[in-house]
Amino acid sequence: MQIIITGGAGFLGQKLAKTLVNSAVEFSELVLVDIVLPLNSTDDEYVKCIQADLSEPEEAFRLISNETSIVFHLAAVVSSHAEQDFDIGWKVNLDLTRNLLEACRKVKPDIRFVFSSSLAVFGGNLPEIVTDQTAVTPQSSYGSQKAMCELLVNDYSRKGYVDGRVLRLPTICVRPGKPNLAASSFVSSIIREPLHGLEAICPVSVDLSLWLSSPNTIISNIIKASQLPADKFGIWRTVNLPGIGVTISKMLESLEKQTDKMIRAKVKFKFDEKINIIVSSWPGKIDNSRALEMGFEADQNFDEFILQYKNEHLK
Amino acid sequence: MQIIITGGAGFLGQKLAKTLVNSAVEFSELVLVDIVLPLNSTDDEYVKCIQADLSEPEEAFRLISNETSIVFHLAAVVSSHAEQDFDIGWKVNLDLTRNLLEACRKVKPDIRFVFSSSLAVFGGNLPEIVTDQTAVTPQSSYGSQKAMCELLVNDYSRKGYVDGRVLRLPTICVRPGKPNLAASSFVSSIIREPLHGLEAICPVSVDLSLWLSSPNTIISNIIKASQLPADKFGIWRTVNLPGIGVTISKMLESLEKQTDKMIRAKVKFKFDEKINIIVSSWPGKIDNSRALEMGFEADQNFDEFILQYKNEHLK
Repeated sequence: MQIIITGGAGFLGQKLAKTLVNSAVEFSELVLVDIVLPLNSTDDEYVKCIQADLSEPEEAFRLISNETSIVFHLAAVVSSHAEQDFDIGWKVNLDLTRNLLEACRKVKPDIRFVFSSSLAVFGGNLPEIVTDQTAVTPQSSYGSQKAMCELLVNDYSRKGYVDGRVLRLPTICVRPGKPNLAASSFVSSIIREPLHGLEAICPVSVDLSLWLSSPNTIISNIIKASQLPADKFGIWRTVNLPGIGVTISKMLESLEKQTDKMIRAKVKFKFDEKINIIVSSWPGKIDNSRALEMGFEADQNFDEFILQYKNEHLK
Repeated sequence: MQIIITGGAGFLGQKLAKTLVNSAVEFSELVLVDIVLPLNSTDDEYVKCIQADLSEPEEAFRLISNETSIVFHLAAVVSSHAEQDFDIGWKVNLDLTRNLLEACRKVKPDIRFVFSSSLAVFGGNLPEIVTDQTAVTPQSSYGSQKAMCELLVNDYSRKGYVDGRVLRLPTICVRPGKPNLAASSFVSSIIREPLHGLEAICPVSVDLSLWLSSPNTIISNIIKASQLPADKFGIWRTVNLPGIGVTISKMLESLEKQTDKMIRAKVKFKFDEKINIIVSSWPGKIDNSRALEMGFEADQNFDEFILQYKNEHLK
């Protein structure tokens, strides 16, 4: 009953570990693994932290064992980074995933493999409302890599080599900490920085609609995915996780409502073509009826996103 | 002005070479490459035949040069083979394609790279009419590998690392020669064998609708793809090549019309669940309006398929 979290040093990996430790999910050991040694921020003696480069096949094989029951595969090179460094993107976002799947297949094929994909698989000429039947035509290397891994996890699952579950995560808001190389990094910055009294740059138009989920909702859905019976997914293991569609202006209205005009004015606009091309190619609205039927949940409104951040990071 | 054909020993590769030699397409050298040494059946002194295992990166790099202007990448492990031998399928259908793309990127990124994908990328719960906007949910490793390569070629093209063109080939009928390990092998056998006075086994129901193209039409469309300007493809390089939807019973009616009842009676029925699962998961009807607008062509009716085979192989 060992659970493994790749990308264990990252924000989602750390939050998932903390949530699992306090959940009803049973495990004998919870392993956080990353390219840098993850911290154990849980104070739980059954949590183990490992530094490993899983893009090397032998390290992936060393990680997976007969004890492994669930792998939460969150490790990734983020979108702008994968766009800047083509080789690293393919190595980490495709090859590493393949190494883990091969290790599961060879060592213990009934492992539940929860893979975090992204709505960045979408792009180009999208219908107004994206559904589970919408073709993916990614306009970034990150999106292409995630879309390829979705196919990989599905094929390994169909063959019975792993029990895969693929979640297309909405853009997460509000992420704590510092901006990163994700093209969507500003989505959190324009709320987080003003809440800390700092300026933030918005690189896209106020009219752009984003498809968002709060960190707590994402984590709850990721855990849910690991607990559902396989047949709930049917013949296709990929699910668009529920989110809510919010424009930048709605986000800033909400920020002003919960703080004041001065705080909102901390957000400056400086258009960035490169970021705009990537982010505006993602869907602003997704039909989540299948995901909701399966038991996955969405946030109610954007005010909650800000309250959640305040509660957890501004005490 | 060198043209390279991978899978050059195969039926399509050989036919493409013969057609190119007699076409208006200019080249200084036409290279046929395959895992077995291809024959030069063209009698053309500018045709060169090479044996190479392109799933080895260095061999792919050795093949592509500054002289290369077009790569027709037809090499593949066929569907039932990839289903039986999982590792070979990924190595040839995914890794080999990636090696070629890397070589193009590093050596000469303006190479026109025509990739033969397949309608096997489709599967599962398909709409009655498949379009360019239909999501791919392949139910075979072959389909998964082809779908992943489509994403790969598109991303390399978007980045300007290659000038890719991806064609989803309909099922080809009538292939000459012997049955192979393609799940669709029977589609040609049930016409070809009776025409030669031999028995053939049909492993699916007479009601199954197939999406077909004749060899001549396929070859003409493949050459067309290499000659179109890149902007004709827009932001997505993948095209469902035109075909016609024909049921098994229509095919056999046509066979009887062009021969007699005795010949038709050579086709016996023996249901094969494995083949049926794969083949019946492919679309029976595709909206080809985009492809037709781009200038790709379809056959008119199934009688022509039989006439074409008779003309070329029964003289």
